[in-house]
Amino acid sequence: MRIARFSLNGEPKFGIVDGPELVVLNGHPLVQGYDTTGERVPLKDVKLLAPTIPSKIVCIGKNYADHVAEMGREINPEPTIFLKPSSAIIGPGDSIVLPVQSERVELEAELAIVIGQITRGVTEKDALEHVWGFTIANDVTARDLQATDDQWARAKGFDTFCPLGPWIETEFVPDGQIVESRIDGETKQQASIDLMLHNVPKIISYVSQNMTLLPGDVILTGTPAGISQISSGQIVECEVEGIGTLLNPVL
Amino acid sequence: MRIARFSLNGEPKFGIVDGPELVVLNGHPLVQGYDTTGERVPLKDVKLLAPTIPSKIVCIGKNYADHVAEMGREINPEPTIFLKPSSAIIGPGDSIVLPVQSERVELEAELAIVIGQITRGVTEKDALEHVWGFTIANDVTARDLQATDDQWARAKGFDTFCPLGPWIETEFVPDGQIVESRIDGETKQQASIDLMLHNVPKIISYVSQNMTLLPGDVILTGTPAGISQISSGQIVECEVEGIGTLLNPVL
Repeated sequence: MRIARFSLNGEPKFGIVDGPELVVLNGHPLVQGYDTTGERVPLKDVKLLAPTIPSKIVCIGKNYADHVAEMGREINPEPTIFLKPSSAIIGPGDSIVLPVQSERVELEAELAIVIGQITRGVTEKDALEHVWGFTIANDVTARDLQATDDQWARAKGFDTFCPLGPWIETEFVPDGQIVESRIDGETKQQASIDLMLHNVPKIISYVSQNMTLLPGDVILTGTPAGISQISSGQIVECEVEGIGTLLNPVL
Repeated sequence: MRIARFSLNGEPKFGIVDGPELVVLNGHPLVQGYDTTGERVPLKDVKLLAPTIPSKIVCIGKNYADHVAEMGREINPEPTIFLKPSSAIIGPGDSIVLPVQSERVELEAELAIVIGQITRGVTEKDALEHVWGFTIANDVTARDLQATDDQWARAKGFDTFCPLGPWIETEFVPDGQIVESRIDGETKQQASIDLMLHNVPKIISYVSQNMTLLPGDVILTGTPAGISQISSGQIVECEVEGIGTLLNPVL
């Protein structure tokens, strides 16, 4: 099932994607369940929003060996955790704004986990039970600032640097699916999720031993090789097979 | 004026500290202003809560030269930004829980800025107009994990690693005030806020060029030298002259 968040007459709503239409829901699905209003609206007539408003965005760095190699870094035995601020979130179709502080902003297509319940200290075996679904993220990064700052929060924390969407796929199974990014239609990244150094259950378990995850929280699972500079006027697409495509223009 | 958040009959409320009493407010002061209910409760009868629920906690690292020296690091020309998750927040009197992953957890007493309005790209000159007030934070850190991880989010992100309080002082003027920490009554850190490498207006301006700050957001301004290990059974106090004392036991 695909759960989208969208603006209807200026109000944010959740809906279930049903072909070319959205079945409108009452309230928040994690609070009220899938309680339909009976109303249906064409997908093409609404503005999709980021599908969740997380209390935090936890990110896993250096999780594909080929990306670690292209960055000239070492593989860690355990996941690298960093955070992005929620003020960086934009939705599908929203513009990525290049900050004046950076001369090199790059895309990073990633599978994003959306947490469905309070998650603290879960085992790898139980981890997937705590997932609401999966969406797509672009972990936009000012690469020059990441190189000069010892902490990545600034380089990865600018407003608009966390496109999320287009929706949450609740039945997605990560095994063997492809993560891909494109700039103006040209493929830049393309890798199987199986190449992750730390898989989805391991990531959830590891993060939940560190900090309590709340419903709606998001974990970005890292990006494969092929990270590329983005420039004003381009169209950036991040795709995860089985979920969809997140498209954002660059302002 | 001192604004506290507290639990009254199981419900979170805001109040104005008036000597030994709290003047209870309706709703959130940043939304409804200082709208009193007429009710007064003795401070000693309520459980104080962290005085704000921020959408993000932005932290400034390496902001006192003596602390940079004791860490064996270099002074940066610009502030170092990192983030703590809001799941780390606890209130006055709540216990700091030592995680099993670390063998050395340390305190870091800090002046904390609480933002009062949407703040994006402000100048140093206008920065203080965006402040609601100031409180005290303990940027609790698993020092051994900070040393082994290249990013600090894990070492500084455990649940209970961000004590905040005891209240927000809206009339606080940072100049010349003393930041101090104590373990079981023994002074560990003591420094004038004037020793900050980047002062409060500079910090707000710099962060706001990077990310939009929302009402209630918190910026931790860095810690002076004297960081010390904390152990189970100890009482940790962080004091900022002109604001008050934030006390937390260690579990």
